[in-house]
Amino acid sequence: MTEEKIKKIELLLLDVDGVLTNEAIIYNDDGKEIKAFNVKDGLGLRLLMNAGIKTGIVTGRRSNALSCRLRNLGVTLLYDGVSEKGSLLPTIVRDTGVSPENMAFIGDDLPDIPLLKRVGLPIAVRNAHELVIEICEIVTEKRGGEGAVREVCERILKTKGLWERSIHGFVS
Amino acid sequence: MTEEKIKKIELLLLDVDGVLTNEAIIYNDDGKEIKAFNVKDGLGLRLLMNAGIKTGIVTGRRSNALSCRLRNLGVTLLYDGVSEKGSLLPTIVRDTGVSPENMAFIGDDLPDIPLLKRVGLPIAVRNAHELVIEICEIVTEKRGGEGAVREVCERILKTKGLWERSIHGFVS
Amino acid sequence: MTEEKIKKIELLLLDVDGVLTNEAIIYNDDGKEIKAFNVKDGLGLRLLMNAGIKTGIVTGRRSNALSCRLRNLGVTLLYDGVSEKGSLLPTIVRDTGVSPENMAFIGDDLPDIPLLKRVGLPIAVRNAHELVIEICEIVTEKRGGEGAVREVCERILKTKGLWERSIHGFVS
Amino acid sequence: MTEEKIKKIELLLLDVDGVLTNEAIIYNDDGKEIKAFNVKDGLGLRLLMNAGIKTGIVTGRRSNALSCRLRNLGVTLLYDGVSEKGSLLPTIVRDTGVSPENMAFIGDDLPDIPLLKRVGLPIAVRNAHELVIEICEIVTEKRGGEGAVREVCERILKTKGLWERSIHGFVS
Repeated sequence: MTEEKIKKIELLLLDVDGVLTNEAIIYNDDGKEIKAFNVKDGLGLRLLMNAGIKTGIVTGRRSNALSCRLRNLGVTLLYDGVSEKGSLLPTIVRDTGVSPENMAFIGDDLPDIPLLKRVGLPIAVRNAHELVIEICEIVTEKRGGEGAVREVCERILKTKGLWERSIHGFVS
Repeated sequence: MTEEKIKKIELLLLDVDGVLTNEAIIYNDDGKEIKAFNVKDGLGLRLLMNAGIKTGIVTGRRSNALSCRLRNLGVTLLYDGVSEKGSLLPTIVRDTGVSPENMAFIGDDLPDIPLLKRVGLPIAVRNAHELVIEICEIVTEKRGGEGAVREVCERILKTKGLWERSIHGFVS
Repeated sequence: MTEEKIKKIELLLLDVDGVLTNEAIIYNDDGKEIKAFNVKDGLGLRLLMNAGIKTGIVTGRRSNALSCRLRNLGVTLLYDGVSEKGSLLPTIVRDTGVSPENMAFIGDDLPDIPLLKRVGLPIAVRNAHELVIEICEIVTEKRGGEGAVREVCERILKTKGLWERSIHGFVS
Repeated sequence: MTEEKIKKIELLLLDVDGVLTNEAIIYNDDGKEIKAFNVKDGLGLRLLMNAGIKTGIVTGRRSNALSCRLRNLGVTLLYDGVSEKGSLLPTIVRDTGVSPENMAFIGDDLPDIPLLKRVGLPIAVRNAHELVIEICEIVTEKRGGEGAVREVCERILKTKGLWERSIHGFVS
């Protein structure tokens, strides 16, 4: 059952383009990338990490803009320039000490499929390719870059019974 | 009553990301932020200040792009890099001489809640988190970055009977 | 009648923010502006100028990004940093030799009203303020930055019987 | 029949603004262009090229941002700064060895019409001008910059019976 799978999550892995961003790949005239993230996703990831759930990035691309956003958020686990996401799994297990069934991964396109198939909780954003949506346990209501990641973070925290404590400092 | 609360407003406080902007956090390759504001919000803030109502910014983040926009608009009251917005209230009272019941604050996410709860008129943008919307007196029709702030500025001016005078130079 | 007014147009004046762009005011970290225009508007303005109809910009702001776009399009008549658009009219008449009844102006917000009221054909973009829409002869179907200017250019060319000739090089 | 025409395609030509991007022409303060592409379009073009179908760009504009994106994708056939797209056809035939009936071209505006009329499979994005849509064999469901090119790439691969092989590395 989905709820049972969510309860086991100790590590949330994220693709970047189309998941943490809308699908825009923005280049300036020097060929450097500009990237647009979502402020509400950022708070979701912070709440998740504060609650003791690890986060990490798995992306086929590489950019300074991404590194800066991750530094700003305190996300330290970054696998970028990854050509085969599925074969990265043993490395992730080794680096984090988390076993695959305790991992969730949010993806949106074909290169995410091999890793999505190997983790305990595969998640597709609403704007994901149909073949990605087919194999995922959860499809977000929001699109990538428009709060899809925040939605997942809150669902994990609520299902694990960590939500009230997470927001205590804000609402009390 | 809402109208009575609006009539008392002497200071409009604003969160930035998700309120004065859509929810995009944009980084360039040097890790510097680019920010997109709304031109109609700008005129709304100018009309409000011309009518003698103070404006100010309360944000957890910090960027040159924001400072430039504020300088352009003539908004001089800026609290940025604020980690606990609620505990900032005494400072705001001291700096402005305005008491909390005469303040409005427009927010969109959990960190805005402590300050929203302490001001006379708490306002949520349409794209605000559900917990923010729950505690607010007003929810805007427009989204942050798409004219939500302009909407609030006009409503304050109209409710206070200052609108006709505000636009006199344009329509006469 | 609207069609009669359109037939008289010899000069199309345009506001920038909210008309040639969506309403975004974008600042980078150096406080410099980035501006996003619409490619289809660009062709519309070129076709209009090729057909002998003059074009010009009337804006309260000023940016290099705008100047570059105008140079790229061949629009040479630029009034920027204008604080009172209505009182600019005699200057425009003197510079262009066009009388007010032969001018159209596309605007979206309160500062455009004084000039809109003085030209022969006042036009509002769909995203214009309600007070602007009220006084305009035409309201575009498209929003500013999404093709509103192209829509106006084509309507002028078609009403004046210049459309077939304008597109002859493309469709023959 | 459309399917028969698709089966013959050996070269997919693409306009840029409005096709590979939404219609935004973005200038920074130095007059340099920033361009926003779509990540899913990128994978579509890679899959197409991996399957042996050539790709190329035909645009009236010129920017470093475009060149960088093309280099990133491995698209080497670039005709930019083209003033008359129709008269470019003999050059394309000579450079690629592909005859016009085996070419598809995706366009969105009037300058694309002369080339669209001369290739075997003319394709319009959903946001194309009505005169472009009228003469095209296919109109995409998605808009330019929002996955229109990916949609075409997948349709070509599926119609030619190359899809299963293309995605084998992802789904097996």
